[in-house]
Amino acid sequence: MKNILIIGAGKSSSSLIKYLLDKSEVENLFLTIGDISIDNATKLINNHKNATAIIFDVFDENQRVKEIQKSDIVVSMLPARFHIEVAKDCVKYSKNMVTASYVSNEMKALDTQVKEKGLVFMNEIGVDPGLDHMSAMQIIDSIREKNAKMLLFESFTGGLVAPESDNNLWNYKFTWNPRNVVLAGQGGAAMFIQEGTYKYIPYHKLFRRTEFLKINNTKFEAYANRDSLKYRSVYGLEKIPTMYRGTIRKVGFSRAWNIFVQLGMTDDSYIIEDSENMSYRDFVNLFLAYSPSDSVELKLRSYLKIDQDDIMWEKLIELDIFNPKKKIGIKNATPAKMLQRILEDSWTLQEHDKDMIVMQHLFGYEIDGEKHQIESSLVVLGENQTYTAMAKTVGLPVAIATLKILKGEIKTPGVQIPISKEVYEPILKELEKYGIKFIEKETTYLGYNPNNVIG
Amino acid sequence: MKNILIIGAGKSSSSLIKYLLDKSEVENLFLTIGDISIDNATKLINNHKNATAIIFDVFDENQRVKEIQKSDIVVSMLPARFHIEVAKDCVKYSKNMVTASYVSNEMKALDTQVKEKGLVFMNEIGVDPGLDHMSAMQIIDSIREKNAKMLLFESFTGGLVAPESDNNLWNYKFTWNPRNVVLAGQGGAAMFIQEGTYKYIPYHKLFRRTEFLKINNTKFEAYANRDSLKYRSVYGLEKIPTMYRGTIRKVGFSRAWNIFVQLGMTDDSYIIEDSENMSYRDFVNLFLAYSPSDSVELKLRSYLKIDQDDIMWEKLIELDIFNPKKKIGIKNATPAKMLQRILEDSWTLQEHDKDMIVMQHLFGYEIDGEKHQIESSLVVLGENQTYTAMAKTVGLPVAIATLKILKGEIKTPGVQIPISKEVYEPILKELEKYGIKFIEKETTYLGYNPNNVIG
Repeated sequence: MKNILIIGAGKSSSSLIKYLLDKSEVENLFLTIGDISIDNATKLINNHKNATAIIFDVFDENQRVKEIQKSDIVVSMLPARFHIEVAKDCVKYSKNMVTASYVSNEMKALDTQVKEKGLVFMNEIGVDPGLDHMSAMQIIDSIREKNAKMLLFESFTGGLVAPESDNNLWNYKFTWNPRNVVLAGQGGAAMFIQEGTYKYIPYHKLFRRTEFLKINNTKFEAYANRDSLKYRSVYGLEKIPTMYRGTIRKVGFSRAWNIFVQLGMTDDSYIIEDSENMSYRDFVNLFLAYSPSDSVELKLRSYLKIDQDDIMWEKLIELDIFNPKKKIGIKNATPAKMLQRILEDSWTLQEHDKDMIVMQHLFGYEIDGEKHQIESSLVVLGENQTYTAMAKTVGLPVAIATLKILKGEIKTPGVQIPISKEVYEPILKELEKYGIKFIEKETTYLGYNPNNVIG
Repeated sequence: MKNILIIGAGKSSSSLIKYLLDKSEVENLFLTIGDISIDNATKLINNHKNATAIIFDVFDENQRVKEIQKSDIVVSMLPARFHIEVAKDCVKYSKNMVTASYVSNEMKALDTQVKEKGLVFMNEIGVDPGLDHMSAMQIIDSIREKNAKMLLFESFTGGLVAPESDNNLWNYKFTWNPRNVVLAGQGGAAMFIQEGTYKYIPYHKLFRRTEFLKINNTKFEAYANRDSLKYRSVYGLEKIPTMYRGTIRKVGFSRAWNIFVQLGMTDDSYIIEDSENMSYRDFVNLFLAYSPSDSVELKLRSYLKIDQDDIMWEKLIELDIFNPKKKIGIKNATPAKMLQRILEDSWTLQEHDKDMIVMQHLFGYEIDGEKHQIESSLVVLGENQTYTAMAKTVGLPVAIATLKILKGEIKTPGVQIPISKEVYEPILKELEKYGIKFIEKETTYLGYNPNNVIG
């Protein structure tokens, strides 16, 4: 039997565990699933004989070493900052490792040792990063094989609520970590390049500089990700004149979200005094001028110049953000944490709600003097609150990669991400069986022309 | 003879050195003025027999220790981050010390040792911080002596161009470190309290939330400083319902400066590719949408909704910011550095230009059920480009404090700022002889009412 140690049994582990359990008889696998709390792991295992749930503390060195030594491969589904101790032990005891997280500098630094020991440390093999890398590289490599010149690469991903559960004015619910949604876009200007011209958008303008796109005849919008420029070297597209990556939302979300950004409500850098006892209304008033003779509503409208019949206003009302009775109830909270608390009232998935992952890549290229464009799109719907679209698109690539590394089908050693054919080709092929399939079409080359992108 | 070591002979040292040289015969003083370059020190000394200029490197431990040992008191006019090594040696060799900088945590940590040795380490004794502390505390203490209750403290300071040299549309020139002007307000939300209500302004809204004030019948505006709240404990005003500190500009400056903030031009956190060869026009275009068929001018106007007859537009034109021929000429520059380069073309003081320091405090208090208000204002004009208003208001308090510490007239030991009567009373009195005199008047209590502040 091959032993797989999975560390972390959170939301993203359901499809990962199901895939491996379903294969466990044929492939002779045994899963050990460790987490601080084993409730979710126990539920996911559902008495399957080829798995066990254990209480696992990644900071308990004895336990960590013992479990890693017993395993043939280690999958870490912990938050990214906790991977490194696991990774160091994996090097020490010569175990392969898989994560869905960005490669940290510390992880990268292990590359030489990992190669010396002939190990595979596969990272960024979830949805974004992960599926985006694989699906993009497959087409980029095919364009390169034609000796064509890449002109443009744009890539958009979004985690949204499924259309059937989309019943609020924002067309949005939290399908993943709400904190990341509130903080999205912070930490520096968004950078990209369009037809050879560098562009920089400061955070406070990010949600007013969206691009439109269309997937399956539905119009979406996207705001720019932090650093699109670094993907030029990752994908081997150093000279490409247009490189843009963005996050997808339903049309109108960003314009309304911008209200929170403008007010300063998404700031996570300082603590609000007496946050616990503050009402939602008090919270809003913190960011408005002092003027006790005017209402919070009118001050906000006047400050941000919001017309009384603007749909943005209805979106705020829907959140009950002016309620003077509802309390925040969190001690020493930052504005971002207080805003998250208010949004969770309205944007938490309900029992029968389903989520959705949407992704689209645009590839522009030139061959024999002629310009071409390929559009590749993906829509994945969640099945229920356990096997969500997010869990499937994160967990299945991780699971497939884990099994293929275990079986020696993926074997080039090193700390890596899934951009080589050896990795992406078999994984993308198998993902299609699970309904994760990109629809590819040739379109006329539009170049970068925002007016025509919608077509 | 008493030996005074002055480290740093930059712009702010002229009035400091002049004051001490003028007193050197009567008081028996000898000045050693150390700087990396001695040109300015030599010029300021002008062959006076009671002073010498030396090339001095604060990181050269041997030299630092030697010069500190020879001195009776040390004045550090270096940038704040360089004080600590000097301060440690001053403790070691039992020398008093004076700086015009904010007390760092490292400096504060020396307090016990400084007290044990009976030394005076006087900090924050320039203009802001410095003159603001002294002039505010004098009135706050006098209000306290009446057993009155403080209701309001607002304090505003600005370094501006003198009216006679005020000849550009921005009514502004660089009278101090241009870099600090470009970065002003960054690093977190501005925080203050108004009639018991906390208020927080994010950086990108700071220049649209100005307050008006009037000094000598001239209207000014002020934007909020970073942290007004911490001054509650500094001034012993923990329970005060209104506490606000701001930076003064001529009316209309902030509204136009906001253009740079909105575009993202004041960001100092990342490097622009090929900044050196970029034109002013290219720089502006970095922050605008890609659309080669539209002009940079129209894109900017449309983006920030600037009317064609808005004076803000004329202010941009005056800076020649759309010039496609003028090059930035700085390698690996941040947006903030590039903007500074453009502004320096227009805002550098010319040979006969004079500067101006303006300051105003408002004190509200209640006594026997009646509310009162005191307004205290200061205007200092520069004499020329050497004895600027900035140099006088920074250097004279430093110089006077230095001499008084040397003579034992200021003697309470410890790492301190000038908020005790022993310190501020004699210094403020002597400053009046140099034309640095606050005009104080009783007004009717307005409380915090922005509509009435102008009167």
